[in-house]
Amino acid sequence: MIVRPHQHWFFRLFVWHGSVLPDILFRLSLNLVMSVIAVICLQWYEQLGVRLTTAPFSLLGIAIAIFLGFRNNASYARYTEARQLWGALLITQRSLLRQVKSVLSDEAEIQQFSQMLIAFAWSMKHQLRHTDGRDDLRRLVPARYLAQVENSPQPTNRLLLCMGDWLGEQRRAGRLSDVLYSGIDANLNRLSDVLGGCDRIANTPIPFAYTLILHRTVYLFCSLLPFALVPDLHYLTPLVSVFISYTFLSLESLAEELEDPFGSSPNDLPLNALCNGIEIILCEMIDRPGPEKMRPDGNCMLT
Amino acid sequence: MIVRPHQHWFFRLFVWHGSVLPDILFRLSLNLVMSVIAVICLQWYEQLGVRLTTAPFSLLGIAIAIFLGFRNNASYARYTEARQLWGALLITQRSLLRQVKSVLSDEAEIQQFSQMLIAFAWSMKHQLRHTDGRDDLRRLVPARYLAQVENSPQPTNRLLLCMGDWLGEQRRAGRLSDVLYSGIDANLNRLSDVLGGCDRIANTPIPFAYTLILHRTVYLFCSLLPFALVPDLHYLTPLVSVFISYTFLSLESLAEELEDPFGSSPNDLPLNALCNGIEIILCEMIDRPGPEKMRPDGNCMLT
Amino acid sequence: MIVRPHQHWFFRLFVWHGSVLPDILFRLSLNLVMSVIAVICLQWYEQLGVRLTTAPFSLLGIAIAIFLGFRNNASYARYTEARQLWGALLITQRSLLRQVKSVLSDEAEIQQFSQMLIAFAWSMKHQLRHTDGRDDLRRLVPARYLAQVENSPQPTNRLLLCMGDWLGEQRRAGRLSDVLYSGIDANLNRLSDVLGGCDRIANTPIPFAYTLILHRTVYLFCSLLPFALVPDLHYLTPLVSVFISYTFLSLESLAEELEDPFGSSPNDLPLNALCNGIEIILCEMIDRPGPEKMRPDGNCMLT
Amino acid sequence: MIVRPHQHWFFRLFVWHGSVLPDILFRLSLNLVMSVIAVICLQWYEQLGVRLTTAPFSLLGIAIAIFLGFRNNASYARYTEARQLWGALLITQRSLLRQVKSVLSDEAEIQQFSQMLIAFAWSMKHQLRHTDGRDDLRRLVPARYLAQVENSPQPTNRLLLCMGDWLGEQRRAGRLSDVLYSGIDANLNRLSDVLGGCDRIANTPIPFAYTLILHRTVYLFCSLLPFALVPDLHYLTPLVSVFISYTFLSLESLAEELEDPFGSSPNDLPLNALCNGIEIILCEMIDRPGPEKMRPDGNCMLT
Amino acid sequence: MIVRPHQHWFFRLFVWHGSVLPDILFRLSLNLVMSVIAVICLQWYEQLGVRLTTAPFSLLGIAIAIFLGFRNNASYARYTEARQLWGALLITQRSLLRQVKSVLSDEAEIQQFSQMLIAFAWSMKHQLRHTDGRDDLRRLVPARYLAQVENSPQPTNRLLLCMGDWLGEQRRAGRLSDVLYSGIDANLNRLSDVLGGCDRIANTPIPFAYTLILHRTVYLFCSLLPFALVPDLHYLTPLVSVFISYTFLSLESLAEELEDPFGSSPNDLPLNALCNGIEIILCEMIDRPGPEKMRPDGNCMLT
Repeated sequence: MIVRPHQHWFFRLFVWHGSVLPDILFRLSLNLVMSVIAVICLQWYEQLGVRLTTAPFSLLGIAIAIFLGFRNNASYARYTEARQLWGALLITQRSLLRQVKSVLSDEAEIQQFSQMLIAFAWSMKHQLRHTDGRDDLRRLVPARYLAQVENSPQPTNRLLLCMGDWLGEQRRAGRLSDVLYSGIDANLNRLSDVLGGCDRIANTPIPFAYTLILHRTVYLFCSLLPFALVPDLHYLTPLVSVFISYTFLSLESLAEELEDPFGSSPNDLPLNALCNGIEIILCEMIDRPGPEKMRPDGNCMLT
Repeated sequence: MIVRPHQHWFFRLFVWHGSVLPDILFRLSLNLVMSVIAVICLQWYEQLGVRLTTAPFSLLGIAIAIFLGFRNNASYARYTEARQLWGALLITQRSLLRQVKSVLSDEAEIQQFSQMLIAFAWSMKHQLRHTDGRDDLRRLVPARYLAQVENSPQPTNRLLLCMGDWLGEQRRAGRLSDVLYSGIDANLNRLSDVLGGCDRIANTPIPFAYTLILHRTVYLFCSLLPFALVPDLHYLTPLVSVFISYTFLSLESLAEELEDPFGSSPNDLPLNALCNGIEIILCEMIDRPGPEKMRPDGNCMLT
Repeated sequence: MIVRPHQHWFFRLFVWHGSVLPDILFRLSLNLVMSVIAVICLQWYEQLGVRLTTAPFSLLGIAIAIFLGFRNNASYARYTEARQLWGALLITQRSLLRQVKSVLSDEAEIQQFSQMLIAFAWSMKHQLRHTDGRDDLRRLVPARYLAQVENSPQPTNRLLLCMGDWLGEQRRAGRLSDVLYSGIDANLNRLSDVLGGCDRIANTPIPFAYTLILHRTVYLFCSLLPFALVPDLHYLTPLVSVFISYTFLSLESLAEELEDPFGSSPNDLPLNALCNGIEIILCEMIDRPGPEKMRPDGNCMLT
Repeated sequence: MIVRPHQHWFFRLFVWHGSVLPDILFRLSLNLVMSVIAVICLQWYEQLGVRLTTAPFSLLGIAIAIFLGFRNNASYARYTEARQLWGALLITQRSLLRQVKSVLSDEAEIQQFSQMLIAFAWSMKHQLRHTDGRDDLRRLVPARYLAQVENSPQPTNRLLLCMGDWLGEQRRAGRLSDVLYSGIDANLNRLSDVLGGCDRIANTPIPFAYTLILHRTVYLFCSLLPFALVPDLHYLTPLVSVFISYTFLSLESLAEELEDPFGSSPNDLPLNALCNGIEIILCEMIDRPGPEKMRPDGNCMLT
Repeated sequence: MIVRPHQHWFFRLFVWHGSVLPDILFRLSLNLVMSVIAVICLQWYEQLGVRLTTAPFSLLGIAIAIFLGFRNNASYARYTEARQLWGALLITQRSLLRQVKSVLSDEAEIQQFSQMLIAFAWSMKHQLRHTDGRDDLRRLVPARYLAQVENSPQPTNRLLLCMGDWLGEQRRAGRLSDVLYSGIDANLNRLSDVLGGCDRIANTPIPFAYTLILHRTVYLFCSLLPFALVPDLHYLTPLVSVFISYTFLSLESLAEELEDPFGSSPNDLPLNALCNGIEIILCEMIDRPGPEKMRPDGNCMLT
């Protein structure tokens, strides 16, 4: 995620990092080349007696804009839902720790539980980004659960199972009545919702045909556009054509970037910073020293 | 579902499988034929003194694009809801198994319950795809419930009833207090929500008149389009006309495909893979060997 | 509701029943007459020195399409919510019966309760369609509650009250602990949600002014359209004008039809079939013979 | 709210009451005057060598239509939410009374509680419409709570507090176990949600700048429109200009009317009728005579 | 927030404060300068043989309007959600106080709890606006919790922890059964939801690339527009160009303002007034004198 809060409107026009320009630069250059070709061929082209007029391109451009608006909505909804799930993760973990602190008194047990909560967040991050999470597991998971979590093919879900186990133990030991147990267990259900929701977003893309149809129509539209513009605009064709192409290509490209909000491109969610924030807050709640807060790097980038 | 994660943008332009091209190819060909007829008849057509201009077609095209955007939204919302329900299925089954494991201790009973959970997923798949699920039921449902499930006209709902029965038995045997029973029963209610939600999507299409109106207007629009384009575009009519028709026909066709997300076309939900995933995860949670993970076939296709 | 699942795209173009054509045929004919008048008067009209151009009609048409898209969204959201409420009805009734079966053992009591559940669905249908439901009440409601239900001005809500009464009785008789009672009572609350939600949709239309504004602008737009098209299109005016009018009028007409999803036009919800389905499923759950399943009539129509 | 269910489409074109015509008539007349001025000045205006063309007005009109669509969505969402909150009010009150009737037996206590429920609805109505509710409070609130409710600056919230008090009393008197108490208390929380939700809608309008921007652009657009239309349309300018202005002004005006759904204009919610309905239904549930049902007045108007 | 309820439509046209005019005035002036340059250079520009036509600008303008509509939706959704969270805060705090009052009897304890609720609201405000909240904490937090709240880097969350602590104490002292404790604890979970939700909105902006793309395209579009309009409009170019630019720039500027609803610009949420309202209501509920109600300042502004 790019963090760039209070910039002057004028300087924003020239921001490079965090825009989608790097991704579409090549296609924009192709469009520029097409425009120059269109300008050069104009005379020969007019003798041919055929001409592309702007009218069908207006119709097509507006139709594509409407469909692109739909796809942006769909991608952004995935991004928003992903962020809400990570928000719910923090909320539920705070609630769980508050509940446990308010009814139990054994400090060591509470700390073990909070370690498992923190491990859950990091492990979910590794699962969503397909990275190796064993270092974080070893650092955080209490010894008595480490073996089964580390050996499981689904360590995040196994952590949840261990928390259920830990909770059942407290109940069997008589430290929790059934009613209190149920109240806490309901929040474990919510953690399960978060995990399942993130998995769903990560594993089920927007139907591939949407991506294909828009990818193709946007590309073909931008490629043919210079030939429709050149009879009226002559030397101004490259300027206008590249401008219109920029509008369409950049939104198509951003929609694709946001479709997988757990990736590591500049507009994706900063999962590392979110996990770091969870760890800081949970440590503070049990009055233990937590890690340093992550700061954006030189490009205002949080990962 | 087509799985095709990190392809280069250029090669995407030529993907065949998973696009809706196979479905609309015939209609696109018809449009091409119409365009060629329009080009051939142009001279005779101009002598007639009547001409279709682009203006009313622009208006109509944009109006149709707006309505098509609405229909795409409606179809995509069904697809998304269906996927969310299957996500909730996995989440709830994991929660149920965690709850049961954390408060009961009889391994055999727990395994029977997990078998019923897995059977519920497969049985729901068969119900939604109208296939014969008896093999899966025989493979999974514990012996004491098999007869009544197999003989029921609604085996999926009957499985839920059996789970309620199993749970009531644990309560009557004194292994669960009423409070713990209620906590687990609440998750059975959520399974019932999932089943009812999927049934609703499968049985109630988008009102048929929407499909009809858009089907007709899109088709008639694409058929008349060449005659409106030909006075300006001459030999370029087929190119532009097929391009515009592709945009409209492909989105209309995809909207129809997504309307029934439980079908087996390339953009529908991969119910087999989802059930397989549920089975693997639930088996792992009780430390039993599960099935192999399904992989996409040669066409990147998961069923 | 029209049921017409896997028809070939070509034959769909000519479907009559279930389309909104019957409703708008008269207005389309008026439009045809207007178009013919416009063609006939063209010469005289051009001498007048005034002409309607297409440009303001394009602007107006697109604006109306945008507002019509908004109204379609609103109507379709009502339709969808109505269907979800009836889905929640089935889900909650199944859950209630499962809960009752799993904690009670008296077969006769359970059957009485299931009768009341079925009666609730039928009674709600009669209330929403303003039909006389006394036959269904007499057929289904257990004798001890029949009198008060039949005499109540709100029989559906009274049935809910009787179920609450029945449940309270089981609790007072010691067959249900308070905790179990609360779990079942929560589902009675959901039945109350369903009833209240359906009532709300039936009693509060979309603000009447929306209907009026779009009704008027669509009608006036379609009436003036031929005069704007005729200078360019000459003899083709009737074709294009009727086509554009069909697009706008049919969507406006369908939006009005869906606004009251409990009516009995072809695109409304098949409440009879839904009630029949509920009765079949609940009967099967307590192993009693249920009614026959309703099938679509000759016009693929479910009521 | 205007109630006008099954009118013929033709007569709807001429409905006056309940349309927004009365609100925009003055602005429409201004537009008519502008159009006539444009027609008169045409000759002089053409000699000036400048002309407003339709093209930039098409662009502007469509852009405004898109933004107006957004604002209509926002206003209608507020209207819908307000109606849902009042629906939830009835649902929750029915559920509360059912719960209380099913577990308590003292008729007098139950009746007092139902009186407070009815008073809650009327008091909320007075609060939302800024009217004096003391008469209704005196008529409905039981004597032992009347003083503190009447003297409170927030009588509606105070009533909720009294219901909590009443419920706590039943619990302390041993008539309700803690579990039953909690089940009923959860529904008091829902009443609190309804009250808070309505307050929020009433106190937080759509950001004022949206209203301003659309108000201004719609008005300026309609004022300049005749000058853009007159070069093509001549004597027909007033007709087309007033028609287009009607479309934009009426939707802008309706959006503003719906923004505050608790007002008393013809398209707002009929709070009196809703309260009256609640009173009838709750009275019927405890077999007491209720008030007469309110009927629409001569203009089909429910307040 | 600007409060300006029942103004006449005519005077609204000239409102200055609360509109976004101050923010975009400079850019509008630039546009005016560009328009004048375009008018002056027209002759020389026409000799050049190139001309920008309106057609590609219509296409571009409508596409930008569609994307701007999307961005407005996203920003407004954040604003609405933020307001709903603050609504839920008040609702939950009222419910908590009602629950506590209905089951506990120690006035001093209840007052301490209500102080913590009020402190929670103020502390959340300070956290969201990055202001120093220590004065409010000292004024409100009971002495026994003040030290740990004041020293915590997350005072708002720490307050929640203290409330959990307070509640656990009541339970351990036998004043609350486990069931009652759970019912109140569930509302503490909702407070946690509110805090987490507000944090999420404050810390995760709409992906920066959306802001950039629209910022750039809107700016470039408005800058080039005069050159496209001038060949047709001549001396009227500045008027029309500034009008169109106003429409686009003001909506883009407002979308940016609403993106951070916790700021202190005129269209943001009045957090001070909301906290003040909460304090008044909670004080009234325990019959204590509360603060004065905040009134809008001279510019109808609530902070």
